[in-house]
Amino acid sequence: MPHPRYLSFSWWSFRTVYSLIFILAMIIDCIISVYKILHGPITFNNIEPLAFRLPIIIVCVSALNLASKWPELMLEWHNIESSLPPYATQKDKRRQADRIKMVFLVGMMLSLAEHLLSITQAIRYANRCATTKDPIKNFLLIASDHLFYIFPYSYWLGWYGKTLNVMSTFIWNYMDMFVMIMSIGLTSLFQQLNADLVKFKNKQMSPSFWAERRIQYRSVCMLCEKVDNAISLITMVSFSNNLYFICVQLLKSLNKMPTIISMVYFYFSLLFLLGRTLAVSLYASAIHDESRKPLGILRCVPKESWCVEVKRFAEEISSDSVALSGMKFFFLTRKLVLSVAGTIVTYELVLIQFYESTNLWDCESLLRNFRRQQKLADGILAF
Amino acid sequence: MPHPRYLSFSWWSFRTVYSLIFILAMIIDCIISVYKILHGPITFNNIEPLAFRLPIIIVCVSALNLASKWPELMLEWHNIESSLPPYATQKDKRRQADRIKMVFLVGMMLSLAEHLLSITQAIRYANRCATTKDPIKNFLLIASDHLFYIFPYSYWLGWYGKTLNVMSTFIWNYMDMFVMIMSIGLTSLFQQLNADLVKFKNKQMSPSFWAERRIQYRSVCMLCEKVDNAISLITMVSFSNNLYFICVQLLKSLNKMPTIISMVYFYFSLLFLLGRTLAVSLYASAIHDESRKPLGILRCVPKESWCVEVKRFAEEISSDSVALSGMKFFFLTRKLVLSVAGTIVTYELVLIQFYESTNLWDCESLLRNFRRQQKLADGILAF
Amino acid sequence: MPHPRYLSFSWWSFRTVYSLIFILAMIIDCIISVYKILHGPITFNNIEPLAFRLPIIIVCVSALNLASKWPELMLEWHNIESSLPPYATQKDKRRQADRIKMVFLVGMMLSLAEHLLSITQAIRYANRCATTKDPIKNFLLIASDHLFYIFPYSYWLGWYGKTLNVMSTFIWNYMDMFVMIMSIGLTSLFQQLNADLVKFKNKQMSPSFWAERRIQYRSVCMLCEKVDNAISLITMVSFSNNLYFICVQLLKSLNKMPTIISMVYFYFSLLFLLGRTLAVSLYASAIHDESRKPLGILRCVPKESWCVEVKRFAEEISSDSVALSGMKFFFLTRKLVLSVAGTIVTYELVLIQFYESTNLWDCESLLRNFRRQQKLADGILAF
Amino acid sequence: MPHPRYLSFSWWSFRTVYSLIFILAMIIDCIISVYKILHGPITFNNIEPLAFRLPIIIVCVSALNLASKWPELMLEWHNIESSLPPYATQKDKRRQADRIKMVFLVGMMLSLAEHLLSITQAIRYANRCATTKDPIKNFLLIASDHLFYIFPYSYWLGWYGKTLNVMSTFIWNYMDMFVMIMSIGLTSLFQQLNADLVKFKNKQMSPSFWAERRIQYRSVCMLCEKVDNAISLITMVSFSNNLYFICVQLLKSLNKMPTIISMVYFYFSLLFLLGRTLAVSLYASAIHDESRKPLGILRCVPKESWCVEVKRFAEEISSDSVALSGMKFFFLTRKLVLSVAGTIVTYELVLIQFYESTNLWDCESLLRNFRRQQKLADGILAF
Repeated sequence: MPHPRYLSFSWWSFRTVYSLIFILAMIIDCIISVYKILHGPITFNNIEPLAFRLPIIIVCVSALNLASKWPELMLEWHNIESSLPPYATQKDKRRQADRIKMVFLVGMMLSLAEHLLSITQAIRYANRCATTKDPIKNFLLIASDHLFYIFPYSYWLGWYGKTLNVMSTFIWNYMDMFVMIMSIGLTSLFQQLNADLVKFKNKQMSPSFWAERRIQYRSVCMLCEKVDNAISLITMVSFSNNLYFICVQLLKSLNKMPTIISMVYFYFSLLFLLGRTLAVSLYASAIHDESRKPLGILRCVPKESWCVEVKRFAEEISSDSVALSGMKFFFLTRKLVLSVAGTIVTYELVLIQFYESTNLWDCESLLRNFRRQQKLADGILAF
Repeated sequence: MPHPRYLSFSWWSFRTVYSLIFILAMIIDCIISVYKILHGPITFNNIEPLAFRLPIIIVCVSALNLASKWPELMLEWHNIESSLPPYATQKDKRRQADRIKMVFLVGMMLSLAEHLLSITQAIRYANRCATTKDPIKNFLLIASDHLFYIFPYSYWLGWYGKTLNVMSTFIWNYMDMFVMIMSIGLTSLFQQLNADLVKFKNKQMSPSFWAERRIQYRSVCMLCEKVDNAISLITMVSFSNNLYFICVQLLKSLNKMPTIISMVYFYFSLLFLLGRTLAVSLYASAIHDESRKPLGILRCVPKESWCVEVKRFAEEISSDSVALSGMKFFFLTRKLVLSVAGTIVTYELVLIQFYESTNLWDCESLLRNFRRQQKLADGILAF
Repeated sequence: MPHPRYLSFSWWSFRTVYSLIFILAMIIDCIISVYKILHGPITFNNIEPLAFRLPIIIVCVSALNLASKWPELMLEWHNIESSLPPYATQKDKRRQADRIKMVFLVGMMLSLAEHLLSITQAIRYANRCATTKDPIKNFLLIASDHLFYIFPYSYWLGWYGKTLNVMSTFIWNYMDMFVMIMSIGLTSLFQQLNADLVKFKNKQMSPSFWAERRIQYRSVCMLCEKVDNAISLITMVSFSNNLYFICVQLLKSLNKMPTIISMVYFYFSLLFLLGRTLAVSLYASAIHDESRKPLGILRCVPKESWCVEVKRFAEEISSDSVALSGMKFFFLTRKLVLSVAGTIVTYELVLIQFYESTNLWDCESLLRNFRRQQKLADGILAF
Repeated sequence: MPHPRYLSFSWWSFRTVYSLIFILAMIIDCIISVYKILHGPITFNNIEPLAFRLPIIIVCVSALNLASKWPELMLEWHNIESSLPPYATQKDKRRQADRIKMVFLVGMMLSLAEHLLSITQAIRYANRCATTKDPIKNFLLIASDHLFYIFPYSYWLGWYGKTLNVMSTFIWNYMDMFVMIMSIGLTSLFQQLNADLVKFKNKQMSPSFWAERRIQYRSVCMLCEKVDNAISLITMVSFSNNLYFICVQLLKSLNKMPTIISMVYFYFSLLFLLGRTLAVSLYASAIHDESRKPLGILRCVPKESWCVEVKRFAEEISSDSVALSGMKFFFLTRKLVLSVAGTIVTYELVLIQFYESTNLWDCESLLRNFRRQQKLADGILAF
């Protein structure tokens, strides 16, 4: 891996230009979506295309802005990482890189699987309700419905819309991956520090030892804050967007699914969404959990080596809160995970109540069982 | 700008008398509204005129009371501001004044625009359902409907009611502006302090330096509390009134709008309301954010100059909470913004659920798209 | 006022025996209510008689238990009060006693007014739906409906039931008064301490001065905790019972009131309930507010007299929370008031949404105004 | 009681093998349940069999895992308990053992009673809707309905299913008992410490005395954390499962009960569920309450013996939070009990609102009373 000092950002590099073109295309796409939305009733479900495209534009612009600060940020990260007590073995060091690769791969595989299912389901739906003979036309009319709301049908325009959609889907998934990866990185810095500190548990150390450790801890905290300032817009968009889609999906779950493929796609997509949101939350809250661990070691410092420096270290840990945040409005900790989960469950409970029959003691369901049993006994039913 | 010692308050000045007359007129207006409300069903929507007039009366009385304490408060503010380390350049100093003017101008412009839209919409509505030939009479009958509920129609009474309504609207907007402006002022004091402190980050300073800074910080905190005691009733009225109107507007948003002008007015007014509420919250919570910043500098004090004074300073910042409050019931911090936003979103979700069809997989919407596409291809549809 | 050492409790005193007889009568009354409830559907409204009687029994038993510990508690209170720095003037001292008397009087007057309205409304209701000729019989059949659910009608049984009901109503109101009065008492102890401390603000005092003040503060805190342990069951019953009745009343508010007297009674009773709940909460949370005030003085201790004792005092105040509690499940602070108010408002919003029409832009309401205006102009309508 | 060093875990012991077989049987049972669920609509009520079996499997696997760590954990527990200041009398020591036995017995008795009622109710229900002549067959078809959804009826298969169900029910209850018992154990360690500390309240003790006590306190805290890490999955499953069943039961409570036995079973089971959940919460939150008690003693340390060690002790108690947790997502404290109770009450309120008529001022209910009274007077009605 090259040294971060060789990282650079240029507005004229191929990747920057490519990003700018993509952002421009997305903005146009988004405006067309808004045009379509304004011509129908404004409902929770109708604004879905906007709720999908707008965050992607925000994230892309934010990522471009981040890119310009990236070389400097990584240089600082590298310096702090080097100043920390080194890992005991080379294996420990490589484990972090492996975890990041694994998270990225699994995430992207699942997102690919979900998108393929989505295409299958769209093709099936298009053909079921088909009005034209051409199956590809049927599919493209759905896939780029906002484009064909104002332009007459064209094969290439359809594929252009679909391509944008595929790219958007991966960016949409990537923003969650990105928050996870940054979280893993920051967590690993605290882990590196804690792995070293734990060796000195219950041991008598000099004040200068604790002062050094405190300064290292402080520098990791300050890096955390810098990273948070740089990515907190992405974090907020990722988190609130996931919540929006969870609510939409739960509302949709009350629908009767017309086909098996719709059902498979729907539940896979819902589970993937829930799993991804949970994974982001847990990886991000690991920073906070890990940042509090030194406190356990400081609590065990023997009374002979208890000094002003240890006291200062302990007070700083117990009064400060180190965590990624969504624009400082919320901090990604385990407590947040619980309160979000609680809100979703409450929402689902209220939904259920509207739609679920509560008549549970009628004979009907029992008789249905008996009749089925009769058939089983008669050997009619195969399963 | 004259020195605050030349400020004075007199019960016999023109402005005081004018305020008292206005308050009296509003109280009479309010009683007439209550009379009208009691003659119909008591619903969320019917009490709107009361929910609009009562806060204005409370705020006016509270502002008059504040006016009598104003000279003393400003003198103290001036003294504290002078005792703080001065700004590096004259430009920094002027920036605060500019921000306050800008906030005031933008706020008042938007509130004017909203009121003009409101009048346009009322004229349109009056004429659509008109029963008399005179368009001005139609309009005035709506604009002062509570007055004409007990008095027979009179041209001058109509205009009197409308004038009171215009003045109320601007006061209603001004109370939010006022909280914002006070917040900007208090935030700037902390910024002045922090701008100086940041120069000494990581430097070895004497205990007396830190003691002086701590006393300056303390005096700003105490000013914050005095200002909060003086304006917290206005803050609470402003905040709870905004929440009430957001709920009413969201409930109304489920209505079908009869005309385009109604829709434009409705969404402009809703967005303005949301934006204003958010702006008040963010400006006010900036005080709290800014008041915690010295902690970051204290965390970096080198261990050689760590002393009792630095410790006392750090503990005071981390255990006290400096913020504007609504009668001490809630404190305006970023956390509050999130929890209020969460509550509004939850309320909206429950509303949506009542009124939104969830049938999303029917062919109908798809066929609609196909038909439109057909027309586009035929070149019939112009857009 | 006699010295608290002359207070005593005896199981054989007239008042104890009288209490025991009342509790016994209430238990029988309560069992009869349960019998009636079990013979109908178990709804929110039907269990109201139980929700009214059960808390009274719990509070009476709890009060009897408190009575046996009262002499000891008051002796300790007296000792602590004497050890505090004395009030500057005799007038300050008397003000507390006056406040307690005032709260008690106003509370009891309002509760009397509410009960008289309740009787008026019941008589009106009984006669409107009357089936017998005797108006007193009609009234007593309603007032003691649970008794006459199992016993045949008897004049004296009716009055017995009504008498129990009157006594219950006053006890029901008294438990809120009691919590308020205890809160005023405890708050006044902190005020006594703070009134003295404020004299030494910004002054250089010796460590032993601060140690003495800290010990006094600690003893008031410990008294608070003892009182809380003694009355927290009453506090919880009072608080949760008020919340239950607020919910019931809000649910009832959606009903059409058949007569004006019903409406007057209903809104008076709802406002009284809300006002009483708010008053209990605010008086109780004043303890917490007052207990934190010394912190403001400690923050201003000059750096020369800053010592271990001041530090210990400040840390104890800022880390401990002194407040009355409901069985330690919740603490009566201003924050609780807000969260309870928020919950009630949310509940009311959900209720409204179920029952309120949202059609606000129809011409109908406007035309109604026009028609009325026409009549006003014609001088037909008198107001 | 044998010394914990004689505890051992072996994969080849009878009890381990028996557990593994049971887990295997449950997994198969669970898969069959899932098969049945997927063949019907996915509703809150239909997934109940899964919501009952899945947690049992998780808890059994988790318990097996715990068993392998048990000898080591108990050895540590024993060592810490021995290092604490001994109980004053042998009686105090035995009280803890008695409490554990009592909790276990009462819990198991109630769970047996509930299961017998459940069987009675199922028999009654089976016969009411019976289609076959054989009452045992009718019962078994209900009791093992998921098995007979795919297999033809067989007497032994029915009993096998019922046996698994009985075992599951007791394990389901046992997991709550287990959390309670562990909580009692941990609470007793803090009580042992506090009982000793209270003897030295207000006394002047040497710094080394406080250092020793702090180290003892710390070791109990660390044991708490180890136990929490070991059992927090069980705690979470127990807690969330109880909440799920409370919601299901409250939803069912709106049903009309067909028979008296259904009603008795239903309310007994609901009360048992609520009581058990409350008991688990209160026993677990006692750890947290007890862990904070030393603070009260430290607050009273006289100023002469106030030293760095006492300060350190007090700060550690006031800034750390010692409690059992559900995977660190929530901590079992009294505050949690309140917020859970609040949520359940809110849920119930929303439920009620959907189903309850609010017409309370009609004459009908009054006339019903009059008619009944008429009959009573005529001596027709016996009660």
